[in-house]
Parts: sequence; structure tokens; C-alpha cells
Amino acid sequence: MKFNNRNIYIGKNVKLGENVKLGDNVTIYDNVSIGKNSIVCNDCVVGEPMNDYYYDENYINPETIIGDGALIRSHTIIYCGSEFGEKMSTGHRVTIREKCIVGRNFSIGTISDMQGYTEVGNYCRFHSNVHIGQQSKIGNFVFIYPYVVLTNDPHPPSNICKGPTIGDFSQIAVLSVILPNVKLGKHVLIGAGSVVSKNVDDFMLVAGNPAKLIKDTREIISRETGKSHYPWPYNFSRGMPWEGQDFDIWSESNYKNE
Amino acid sequence: MKFNNRNIYIGKNVKLGENVKLGDNVTIYDNVSIGKNSIVCNDCVVGEPMNDYYYDENYINPETIIGDGALIRSHTIIYCGSEFGEKMSTGHRVTIREKCIVGRNFSIGTISDMQGYTEVGNYCRFHSNVHIGQQSKIGNFVFIYPYVVLTNDPHPPSNICKGPTIGDFSQIAVLSVILPNVKLGKHVLIGAGSVVSKNVDDFMLVAGNPAKLIKDTREIISRETGKSHYPWPYNFSRGMPWEGQDFDIWSESNYKNE
Amino acid sequence: MKFNNRNIYIGKNVKLGENVKLGDNVTIYDNVSIGKNSIVCNDCVVGEPMNDYYYDENYINPETIIGDGALIRSHTIIYCGSEFGEKMSTGHRVTIREKCIVGRNFSIGTISDMQGYTEVGNYCRFHSNVHIGQQSKIGNFVFIYPYVVLTNDPHPPSNICKGPTIGDFSQIAVLSVILPNVKLGKHVLIGAGSVVSKNVDDFMLVAGNPAKLIKDTREIISRETGKSHYPWPYNFSRGMPWEGQDFDIWSESNYKNE
Repeated sequence: MKFNNRNIYIGKNVKLGENVKLGDNVTIYDNVSIGKNSIVCNDCVVGEPMNDYYYDENYINPETIIGDGALIRSHTIIYCGSEFGEKMSTGHRVTIREKCIVGRNFSIGTISDMQGYTEVGNYCRFHSNVHIGQQSKIGNFVFIYPYVVLTNDPHPPSNICKGPTIGDFSQIAVLSVILPNVKLGKHVLIGAGSVVSKNVDDFMLVAGNPAKLIKDTREIISRETGKSHYPWPYNFSRGMPWEGQDFDIWSESNYKNE
Repeated sequence: MKFNNRNIYIGKNVKLGENVKLGDNVTIYDNVSIGKNSIVCNDCVVGEPMNDYYYDENYINPETIIGDGALIRSHTIIYCGSEFGEKMSTGHRVTIREKCIVGRNFSIGTISDMQGYTEVGNYCRFHSNVHIGQQSKIGNFVFIYPYVVLTNDPHPPSNICKGPTIGDFSQIAVLSVILPNVKLGKHVLIGAGSVVSKNVDDFMLVAGNPAKLIKDTREIISRETGKSHYPWPYNFSRGMPWEGQDFDIWSESNYKNE
Repeated sequence: MKFNNRNIYIGKNVKLGENVKLGDNVTIYDNVSIGKNSIVCNDCVVGEPMNDYYYDENYINPETIIGDGALIRSHTIIYCGSEFGEKMSTGHRVTIREKCIVGRNFSIGTISDMQGYTEVGNYCRFHSNVHIGQQSKIGNFVFIYPYVVLTNDPHPPSNICKGPTIGDFSQIAVLSVILPNVKLGKHVLIGAGSVVSKNVDDFMLVAGNPAKLIKDTREIISRETGKSHYPWPYNFSRGMPWEGQDFDIWSESNYKNE
């Protein structure tokens, strides 16, 4: 029922891999490449041009690359000039602005908004309605939960634009703000509703407004197992590359490659 | 001007009641039933299929039921497998995922996001941009204000998914988080910007981050009347079934039926 | 590639100025006027009717006025009965409800939601995902950052609807709530994650939950210049009418006119 080839518009120099399916009312702008076995659902836009498009007759759309096996749900808008690894997945109405470099197995939820000029590693999961300010740097296996905001201007409005840096495996719970230029280490946990103004060391849990050090995450007991829940990769593997394996064994031969 | 029957797509086994109006570009997937006198505005999707639809040729869409007299505003996406009582109303761009059981006179505002697998009673009002995590249980006459998030994972990421339980008549003010498995009693009031980590007794006001008991809501004086504002049904009835009646009289013969 | 004149619907008594471009699938309802050199991108709705439209055969759509040089990005919905000065700009999927009076050079970001019945001055910038409750009054040169919520009901639900008043040049950082009827002076700065329940004097920085007075903004040192950053117009002018001029000189002859 989807994929009726109704009202699809495809620009110049668009490369669609084998077995790519495009939903109704999809628009693909110039210089977009979509990898094989990808699905672009109804009403999506890929390669949305930047502002100059409207005012400059000589505008050339920067190249956009979507890796193999993408699932882009309806009404998502992906601007030009970004590159995504294989198996990206979006919710509905996602907006991703220009010049993002994103790794493989990226997932981003409904109405999330990436403002562009951001680096994201592999296997990151951003849930619904996150806001990633420009110039953020996000590692691998980072999960960001709904209504989290990453900011970049220390005293608005100014000409400074420095986003946060988030280390591998870190988790940012709902309705938290990471202030500009803050660095979170690896395996950090940010509690719900936190306002994080200072750097956070590896493995630490911070929470509150302003956020304070609560404890080492390795002291948090799982309500499932009664043992330490963190580092979480020992206790959670769904969709992760160590699924079905011991995390240590996987890590030894693979983590440096991430 | 609406309802021009342009570009409407209707799947198999769709039942449309008498006097149902469908806007332009509406898509109704298989096995959807829409009650009489309902309006589905432009660009809506009803019965959006689950993930397997894209990959499983034998996928069968679960049944979706919309009660009589619905008003579903433009760009709303309602997944398959949910059931809504009569007189539901949505804002624009609402997303409601699969397997929700929702009572009558439900209202949910623009860009709100229900993640599915949730129970909602009668006469609930969710304003713009609320986020209802999976496995939430919400009573009757519950009002949830913008940017409220109901969560379900106590130490993310884990395999636990237990949402909050919200008692009848409770009110959750803007930008609050209800943490997983938290139980709010009846007639509870959550102040704006709260992070609620503990159960809350009937009639209590809690607020802050972390939320603390502030007072009994019955001590809150109305700025309209100079008397107690709560329990609010004595002072607010617009659109409620006791509108034009004494709440006690209505309650005596009707509330047990809710 | 845009502006193919596909699937555009234009109601009665619509006035389009010289050189107005309309994207695909745009709907303009009755009694809308759009100023010259404006661009309305794909899938936008201008003059969206109020509720009575669906139920009252004699419904007449209130007049909507968009000033010259507007850039309205895709999927934006602007209700009827509002008036916008020249050079308005919206992100994607913005919703602006009825009866707003908005000055010139207004900018509002992706998925923001103005609930209507609001006054906004000149040169205001609302970033992505702000929520402006009804009956808010916002001055000139006010910048509001993502996930800020302006509220209007002091003890919900009630029949009171009194939004905040925000003075000229004030800045409200991300994920803050301004409570009903609160008055912010001029040149106020609200820190990220604040819950503001009391009036704030000119030039003050407040922050926290509940928000407390932190300091005079004029004591905040710029990380760019090493001098006071506030009042910010001395240090930031991009897109402002004093760009390329001394703010004092501009202000002397122009500010009273704002």
C-alpha cells in the first residue's frame, strides 16, 4: 500500500541503490545518494537545500549520503551536506540540518531536531524529541532520551558556538540540558531533569539543577539482577553489536575499531 | 474547501461510519474503523502499520478503532492496534503509537507523542507536546500540560519497562518528569518543572527537583473565587460531564461508572 | 525544483503580492494576504480556520496578514486572524494559532507552537520548539531558546488565562518555564532550566528551580572579549537593525520608535 510511486520528485544526480523504496510524496533534492535496501516513507525530504537555494540562482546543493539499509519514517526532513552510515533509522517528522557526520546504526526518534554541524559516532540512539545544538560531538553507543537539549552559546546571544562533547556509552536521561562546551566522559549517566554546567568524569552519575555528583554509576544496583547495572553494556545488548556475546570478549577485539 | 476527496488512500477492510469526512492526502490503512460524524483532516494517517509491515510480506495490520465524533487535526499519525472512545480530538502532528486503549472525550494537543501500550481513562486532556512513555496507566479526568514526560526505564538502558500510574483528576504541570513506576494518587497536583521520583498521596501538591511535598492542594486558594480551588471539579467544568451541574450531584450517580 | 505549482489550493479573497512563490501542496484559506517577495515552502497552510469551520456552514474566516519578504518553511501551519510584520521567517512544522499580532523581522524555529492571542514586538527570535501560551505579551528584541514554555493558568485547570509579560531585549534560555502573569523587565536573562515564579527586574539574571536572583547581568564577563557581555546589544548585532553601527547611536534615534 505504501510505495505506489505517486507524486515522487527526484532531482539531478541522485543515486538510488538497489532495492530502494520511496513512499508517496517523497522529494529527493540534487546530489543525494541513498544506499541499497533503504526505505524512505511517505512525505519525506532528503537533501533539503540550505537558505541560499531560495535566493541564489547558481546555488549547488552539497552532497548528501545515506548508507545502506536506512529506514526513514514519514515526514522526516534531512538537509543536504550530511553523511550517515549504514542502517540509520528515524522516527516521524525528524529534522536533521546540514553538515552532520553520523556513524552506522544511528537511530533518532519522532520530532527530534538536530541543528547541523554535529559529529555522531556509531550505534547512537536518540529518542523522541531531542534537540542537538550545532557543534556537538557525540561518541559511540550514546543514548539520549526525550526532551534533552544540547546547547552551544554560553551567554546568549553571542557569536560563540561550542557544543558539548559526549563520551562513548554515556546516557542522558529526559529533560536534561548540557551546557555549552561541557565535556562528559565515557559511561556517564545524567539523571532526569539535570542542568549540567561542569565536566563529568568517566562512570559518574550526576543529577539535579544545577547537576551535582551523586555517585559512581557502578554502585547502582539493577532492579532486574540485583547486581551492578553499570557499565550497562554488561546488562543490555538489544541491537548492539555485542548482542548474543560476552561484552568483554566483543570489546577486546572490536571496541578499538569503533 | 477541505474535503475535496483529493489523493485519499483507503486500505482493505476499512469501515467508515455515516457522515465521516476525510481531508486531502489522508491515508487509512487496513482494518481501521472510524465512527460516525468523525472528521479526519488533511494529511493524516490512521492505522499506520508497525515495523514488520516493511519487511514481512504476510504482515496483517492489527485492528484500529476510532469512536464516533472524532476530530483528528492535520498531519496526525495514529498507529494500528489502538482503540479510542467517542469524541476524541487531536491537535496537529500528533503521533500515537500502537496498542493504546483510550476512553471517551480524549483530547491530545499538537506534536504530542504517545509511545503506545498505554491505558488512558475518560475525559483526559493532554496538551501540546506531551510525551507518554510505554506502559503508562492514566486514570480519568487527568490533565497533562506541555512538555511533561512519563518515563519507564529506572536505569537506562535496561530491559525494564514500567511506566507511571496516574490517579483520577490529577494534574501534571508543564516540563515535569514522572519517573518509572511512580504512582500518583487521585486529585494530585504536580508543580511546573518537577522531577517526581516517589509516590504521591491523594490531594497532595508536590513540586521541585527532586519533587517534595509542598502542601495539601485543598489549601490552595483560587485567584478567582478566594476559596479553595481544589478539588478542581468544584471550580472547573468546561467540557466535563458535570458542566452545568453541581459536581457532587453528578459524582454521586456517575463517578463510579467512570 | 520547488515552486512547480503542483497541488496548490487557494481560497477566496486571497491577495498575493508581487513575486510571491508558493511550494507544492500549499493551502491558502480564505481572506489571507501575503506580502510581496514572500516564499511559502511545500506543504504549508496559511489561514487555517478555527474550529467552527468544521461545524458551522456560515463560518467566515478571519483575515490573516503576512508582511512582505516572508520565508515560511515547509509544513508550517498559520491559523487565521493573525498579523505579521515584514520579513517573518519560520522553521519547519511551526504551528501558530489564531489572533497573534507580531512585529517585523520575527523568526520562529522548527516545531515551535504559539497558542494564539499573543502580542510579539519587532526583531524577536524564537528558536526551535518553544511553546508560547495564550495571552503572552512579548516586547522587542526578545530571544527565546528551545523548550521554553510560557504558561497562563496559575492553578490548573481554571478559567484564568494570564500569560507572562516579557520586556525588550530579554533572553530566556533553554528548558525554562515562565509562570502565569509573571513580568520580566528589560534586558533580563533567565538561566537554562529555570522555573520563574516571581517578577524579575531590569538587567537581572535569575536561574534555578525555583529561580533565584543570581546577579546583575552587567557583571557577566564575555568569553569572547573579556569585558561585560550584557547589555548584549553592545556585543551582538547579527540580523539586528543596529548591525554595522554603534548601538548607542542607533538606539538614540531609533529605539523609541520600536
